[in-house]
Parts: sequence; structure tokens; C-alpha cells
Amino acid sequence: MKVLVKVPATTANLGPGFDALGLALNLWNETEFVATNDRKIEVAIEGEGAGILPCDANNSIVDSALQIFDRAGKSCNGLRIRCLNRVPLGSGLGSSSAALLTGMLGANVLLGNPFTDEEILKLAIETEGHPDNVAPAMLGGLVASIVYEDRVISLKLPARANRSPIHVTIVLPDFDFPTKQARAILPKQVDRKDAIYNISRAVLVTEALRTGDLELLGKAMSDALHQPYRIPLIPGAQAAIDAAHHAGTAAVALSGAGPSLIAFSSKEDPAVGLAMKRAFEQAGLQSRTFELGTSYEGAEVTII
Amino acid sequence: MKVLVKVPATTANLGPGFDALGLALNLWNETEFVATNDRKIEVAIEGEGAGILPCDANNSIVDSALQIFDRAGKSCNGLRIRCLNRVPLGSGLGSSSAALLTGMLGANVLLGNPFTDEEILKLAIETEGHPDNVAPAMLGGLVASIVYEDRVISLKLPARANRSPIHVTIVLPDFDFPTKQARAILPKQVDRKDAIYNISRAVLVTEALRTGDLELLGKAMSDALHQPYRIPLIPGAQAAIDAAHHAGTAAVALSGAGPSLIAFSSKEDPAVGLAMKRAFEQAGLQSRTFELGTSYEGAEVTII
Repeated sequence: MKVLVKVPATTANLGPGFDALGLALNLWNETEFVATNDRKIEVAIEGEGAGILPCDANNSIVDSALQIFDRAGKSCNGLRIRCLNRVPLGSGLGSSSAALLTGMLGANVLLGNPFTDEEILKLAIETEGHPDNVAPAMLGGLVASIVYEDRVISLKLPARANRSPIHVTIVLPDFDFPTKQARAILPKQVDRKDAIYNISRAVLVTEALRTGDLELLGKAMSDALHQPYRIPLIPGAQAAIDAAHHAGTAAVALSGAGPSLIAFSSKEDPAVGLAMKRAFEQAGLQSRTFELGTSYEGAEVTII
Repeated sequence: MKVLVKVPATTANLGPGFDALGLALNLWNETEFVATNDRKIEVAIEGEGAGILPCDANNSIVDSALQIFDRAGKSCNGLRIRCLNRVPLGSGLGSSSAALLTGMLGANVLLGNPFTDEEILKLAIETEGHPDNVAPAMLGGLVASIVYEDRVISLKLPARANRSPIHVTIVLPDFDFPTKQARAILPKQVDRKDAIYNISRAVLVTEALRTGDLELLGKAMSDALHQPYRIPLIPGAQAAIDAAHHAGTAAVALSGAGPSLIAFSSKEDPAVGLAMKRAFEQAGLQSRTFELGTSYEGAEVTII
């Protein structure tokens, strides 16, 4: 049996929706799983991470796949995995969540689906430690999550952005900004007024994505809780944000914890990405641009 | 010319939407304005505040009406005002915002509408210092507000609650808890995790009111930023919240800064109000119960 797992890139936070909102993007990792009996684990990687990511049991797709075998009380007699990776690593586009979900979903199907999708999502959130990227990668669309009675509730919110897609330009500078570091620099205490600042804006960002109102998105997509600390640590990022606005984009935010930036526009306009790219160049950083839409669909598993 | 101004009660915060969300309720102050030429200002008050509120130039409706005369560069030659007040004072139901808007809207019509509704809302927000109650009282429905480039943007959000009303039980204990005091006790700094706690919940409270999903409302309507500080200062309030849940209500929050509590249910059930009333009684407080719906309509002005 051969299984194909598709998992999308995701952008978390969306400005004020810090640790609360996440959105799926139409950039997909595609991974083929074949169960073998040769007691070997083989991983072949094409695209993002090829030549960098481990191809043995240290590979994180393998790791999460084996976690599912374990949980199901089954042993793995061999696995051949072929990855076509499109989500760049360490970029703020949810590549680690995508790998985690990919392994879990692939193994679950190989085992005959001992776990429901809901259980897989719960396990993935537990393993990742937060639902920010895992939940929209699984569910698609715009997702808000809360913990209620020790259980994560992730709700897919209606978002016009998903049906009549808002155009999204991601610019990823060649700069190492690990999520751990991006989190460690945040103060444990914040001004009450900054908390309030984000609350009302997160509500309006959600409303703007629901109705496709880019003007509202532009007004609401600012943040007082994480971006002011993170953006100054990424060379050129503030200049790139200013340049994107100047080039006519409606709204810009740090994608997840960065270092990539996400700009929202009514249609694709190369000027936006170019302006951001130049700003990073002036700060001495090369960058890559991804012109994307949002995705209403989440992870997909097909037996082929 | 006689002018009738109707302004609804409002509930602000809605749990996690601290200083961000407000909702209009179908409990109305009705006020008649007559312009006279006798250089007298007369105020007659029936209902809430009768015998307590000043009936001269110190009355806050008069005060805000005269502010509009001033702004329009006109002098007031006399005013006769008759108030039928239904919104209780100092309760957390927006009575001061209602009075402010009433005076401004009444005077504006008497003057031939020199100001647009938008300008009146802006003036009222400036005078009140925040949009929490003024904006939903003016616009009706569920409203979120942000400040953008020194300007308040108040957006009426779609809320199923407004068309197929969710039932609301307000229990107002006989306890003096001025908004100023309720604000002064809040810490200026909060834990980052508490800010995040509220962000995702405010998004989901908005979504629950949009879809009428009371189960979601119950899961999302908790708060880490103001209620934990305010509720312990209102005798019996925590017990009343617990009692309301026990009696089967879906969600309970402090209405505005209190002291009233607001419980949301699918239909009117006297058991909810009764349970809350008893809890306050056991803490030594008498209380009043209001069984209400939400209102999709905001302030209304009629020339009669």
C-alpha cells in the first residue's frame, strides 16, 4: 500500500492574533509512504531541506510516524518515505508542524486508521506543544484555538479569504531566527493596554478575513505583544514592512515567529515582493519570495 | 418641535473581550426633548434615577446636550426634557453612555442636525473616554472598536444573537462598585499568557455570537484580565456565577465593570436569575433581575 499525504504551509499569529490565530496557505508538502518488511527506514527528500534533513530515524516525519506505531501498539517492519517538500524550513511557515502531521497521518493510514482525525490533531498539538500551526495545517482555513478543561479546542472560522482567496506574498530572508530564540526574547509581563490593543484587533482581523475586507485588515493588523520585540532582531524587517506598505499592500505581519514576512493584497503584484526583497538586500540579506493564496483545505490523505 | 430619543442599555467586555467588545440590549431609555424660549432648563425623570439624578444643568443629559449647542456655535434658549429611564444607574449596563448619547442626539436634532451620526459617535467617545458602551448604544448589535491613527473605528459585527436573540439574564446586586474603582484595582502589567488567553477567547466569543452557538460561548467566555480582580470585590458574585452555571445557563460574565452579572441562555428560564439572586442574598445583598434580549438596533431619534 502506498499513501500520499499532503500538508499545507501555515502562517500563525497574523499580527494581533498572537498564539491564537493560524491560517493555511496553498503551499504543500507531498509525502509518499510505503510500508515494507525489510526492517529498513528509508527517506528520500526532494525540494526544501534536501541534503540537510536527516534521512534516517532522526528524520522528524519518521519520528512522528513511529510515535503513531507505538501508540497503536504496533511495530514498524520497515518504511519507505519520499518527500517532496515545498515549505521552507525555519521560516515561520509551519514546516515542523507539517512534518509532524505528515508522519502521524501517514502512519495512521498505513495502520488502518486506528486514530480518528481528531485524535491525530490532539496528539500533534500535544507533541508540538501548541496548536498555532498544527491546527490550521490539519483543518485548513483560518483557525482559532483555546484550551478548555485541559483540552485544545481548535475552531475553523469562516473566512472569505479561503473561497475567494486573498493574495499573500511571503518574503523569507536568509536569516537564522529559531522559534525558541524568538520566544525567549519576549517579556513574561506586558502592559495591560497592550493586551487590550491586541484583543480588539484580533477580533477585527478575523472579521476582515471573513468578509475579505482588506482595508479593515490593514487597519487591524498591528500588534503590541510580539512583533515589537522580534522585528528589530531581523535585519531589514521593519524596512521591508514599510516598503510593502509603500508598494501598496493592504497589511503586513511577521509570519509566525518569523523570519518571514507575510503581506496581504487583493491580487498578485510583483512590486510588493520586490520592495520587500530590496529592503532585506539593503540590510545585507538575500531573500526568497513566495506568491501564494490561502487554503480552505487542510491536510489530505490519499491511498494510491 | 418635540424629539424622542431612544438609547439602549449595553453590556461591555463580554468576558474576554475586555475593553474591546460591547453588545446592545433591548432595554431602552426614552427621552423627550422640547426646545423652549423661557431660558429655563427643566428635567423630569421617571423610572431609574428618579429622585436621585439632578434635574437642573447638572444633569448629564443636559450637560451633553449643551455641549452640542456649544459645538454648533448656538446658544440654548430653554430646554424641557422628560426622561423615562429603564437602564439602572451604576450597574455596568452603560447608563452613563446612554445619558451622554441621549443628550447629544436630542440636541443635534433640535439644532437641525449640524452633526452626522458618525460625528456624534466620535464626540461621545471622546467625552466618555472609551467606546465600550457608547459605540454599541449608537450602532446596536455587537461592536468591536480599535483606535487607528488617532481615530476610533467601531465596527458592528454580524451577530446571530441579534436576529434570533439569545436570552440574557442580568442580575444587579445592590452594591456600590463605581467603574473608577473597578478600573483602579487592575494591575498595569499582566502576564503575557493571560493576554494570549483573552485574545483567542475574544475571537471565539465573537464567533459564538455570530453563529448563535451557546456551547462555544460557554467555553470561550472566560477572562484572565479583569474579572479575576473584580469579581472577588463584589460579595456573592462568584457564587452567583457558579449558581447560574449550575442552573443551566450557557455562559456568564461581569457586565462591563459590574456589579451586574450577565448570563446567556437559549431561552428565558427563571431558574437562572433566581439562583443568582439567592447567591447574592446569601452574601447579604438584595438584587434585581432583568430578563432581556440583545438588540440589533441602536439609538433611534424620532421627531414627534
